[in-house]
Amino acid sequence: MEKLYGGMEGGGTKFVCAVGTGPHEIIAETRFPTTTPEETLEKAVAFFSKYNLAAIGLAPFGPLDLNRASPGYGSITATPKPGWSHADIIGPFRKQFNLPLAFDLDVNAAAFGEFFWVPENRELESLVYFTIGTGIGAGVLIDGKVVHGLTHPEAGHVPLPHDLQKDPFPGVCPFHGDCFEGLANGPAIAKRWGQPAESLSADHPAWELEANYIARALTATIYLLSPQRIVLGGGVMEQPQLFPLIRQKVRAYLNGYIPSPVTNGNMDGYIVPPGLGKRSGILGAMALAKSSL
Amino acid sequence: MEKLYGGMEGGGTKFVCAVGTGPHEIIAETRFPTTTPEETLEKAVAFFSKYNLAAIGLAPFGPLDLNRASPGYGSITATPKPGWSHADIIGPFRKQFNLPLAFDLDVNAAAFGEFFWVPENRELESLVYFTIGTGIGAGVLIDGKVVHGLTHPEAGHVPLPHDLQKDPFPGVCPFHGDCFEGLANGPAIAKRWGQPAESLSADHPAWELEANYIARALTATIYLLSPQRIVLGGGVMEQPQLFPLIRQKVRAYLNGYIPSPVTNGNMDGYIVPPGLGKRSGILGAMALAKSSL
Repeated sequence: MEKLYGGMEGGGTKFVCAVGTGPHEIIAETRFPTTTPEETLEKAVAFFSKYNLAAIGLAPFGPLDLNRASPGYGSITATPKPGWSHADIIGPFRKQFNLPLAFDLDVNAAAFGEFFWVPENRELESLVYFTIGTGIGAGVLIDGKVVHGLTHPEAGHVPLPHDLQKDPFPGVCPFHGDCFEGLANGPAIAKRWGQPAESLSADHPAWELEANYIARALTATIYLLSPQRIVLGGGVMEQPQLFPLIRQKVRAYLNGYIPSPVTNGNMDGYIVPPGLGKRSGILGAMALAKSSL
Repeated sequence: MEKLYGGMEGGGTKFVCAVGTGPHEIIAETRFPTTTPEETLEKAVAFFSKYNLAAIGLAPFGPLDLNRASPGYGSITATPKPGWSHADIIGPFRKQFNLPLAFDLDVNAAAFGEFFWVPENRELESLVYFTIGTGIGAGVLIDGKVVHGLTHPEAGHVPLPHDLQKDPFPGVCPFHGDCFEGLANGPAIAKRWGQPAESLSADHPAWELEANYIARALTATIYLLSPQRIVLGGGVMEQPQLFPLIRQKVRAYLNGYIPSPVTNGNMDGYIVPPGLGKRSGILGAMALAKSSL
C-alpha cells in the first residue's frame, strides 16, 4: 500500500487539511475558518489523528521562522493578524505525532507542489511561483529545493517603477506604499477603481495596468534570477485575460536583451497558470511531507 | 605538492590570466588587452601551456551560452563588442588542453570566488555578488552553486523606481533607458554630472543619488531572494562613502518589514565590500577550476 501524507495549508481566513498519496488520490479533506491559533491548530491535529500517516507538511501564512537552529523554528514571527504573532505552529503537531513534520511558508509549498507534482516542471533547474491575490508573494525553487536564505523571499514587496502621471494611486502597502503588493494586490485594485476586482469587466483598463505591474515584477525576477519557468497563481490570476497581456508586456520590457528563444518567443510555456490549479498550496504541503522522508 | 589551477578573467578591455593554488599562492599572472578573439585567446592558451595544471577556469564577459546541452556551449552569444558575437571561448582551450575546463560568466566567477575563498562566506546558504562599474551585473550563489537558470542573471537590468522630478536623467541603457545599469553605471554618473565619476568629490550629491539606486536594487534582491549576504564590488564601489549611504537607504526602504536582526541592524556585515578586493573575478575563475575536479 502506498504511504499516506498529510498536508495543511494555513491561510489568514481559512485552513485546509488533506490526506492522500498525491494529487490523484486524496482520501480526506477538510476546511475550517482561521480563528485563534489554539483552536485552529487543534482542529488540524484532530483531523490528522484519524489517519495512519507517514509524514505531515505544514504550510501556514507568514512571515515564518524557518531557521532550524532558531528557538522559534516552526512559528509565525510578527504578523498584523491579531493573535497570531509568534504563534507556535509546529508545537501542537510535535506533541501529538511522532512523525516527520515538514514546515514551510504557504507560497513556498505551492512552488514546491508545482515542481514536485507537475511532470513538465520536474526537469527544471529553477522555477518561481507567484501568488497574486489579497497578498502577493513568491516561492523560489532552485535545483529542486525551496530557497530560504536570510528569512524567506517576500516578493510582494519589490520596488517597481510607478508612473504617477498614469496612475496617481499611492498604493496600499502599510510598509512601503507603492511596492508591487501595494500597487497590484486585490485590495489595491478594489480601492483604485472603487469596486471589487472580480466585478470589473474583462476589458476594464484595470487589467492593463495590473498586467503592467505584474510584468515589471516578472522582469525584475527574470533579470535577477533567470528562472526557467514562472507560474502565476492566486485570486487575481483567475482573470484569464491577464496572461496574454503580461506576456506581451514582459517581452516589451525585456526588449530582446536576453538571447533566449524562450523570452523572445510568445512565452506561452514560460509564464503559465498553475499546473495544479487552485490546489498548488495544499498539494505542495503534501509534497513537502513526502519529500521529508 | 598542491595542485596548480589556471584562471582567466576575460573583460571587455583586458584579460587577466593567473596560475596558482589559491589566493595565497599565485605563481604567475599576466594581463593583456582584449583585441580579437583569436589573438586574445591564443595569448591565454600560450600562457597556461607553460604550467602543469590540474584544471582551468574560464570567466569571460557575457552574455554567455552556459547550457552544456547546447551546441554553442562555451561561447559568447550576441554582444555589442565588435568581433566577439558568438566567439567560441572554450574551443581553443579544448584543442590545447586535456584538462577539466570550467566556464562561467565573469561576475558569476567573482560571486563563486567570494564564496569559495572567503572563510566567513563558506557557511552561507546564499550570497549575491554585484559588480557596479562600467557595467552592472550580479552572480547568485545558492547552496554553494552559481545560479544559471534560463540563461544567467542580468541583474544590471532590473527596473527601478525613477523619480523624474528629482532625477530627470533618462538613463544610458540602449535597451531599457533607465534600468538599474542605465541609471547607475559609471557612464551614467559621468553623463549625468558632466565629469568622470572618479573625479567627483566624496560629498558630491552624485553619491547620494547613486546610493539610492543601488539601495533600490538591493531591496529588490532582498525581497526576491533573501540572500544571507550581499557583496558589492566593481569600480564605482571603490568610493568608500557609498557603503554607509547604501546600508542606511536599504534599511529605510525595507522599513522594518523583514523580521531579522540582520536587516534591522546596521548591516555592516550584511552589505559588504569584496573579501578578495579587486581579485574576486580572477580568484573566482581559479575556484571554478578547483571545484570542477
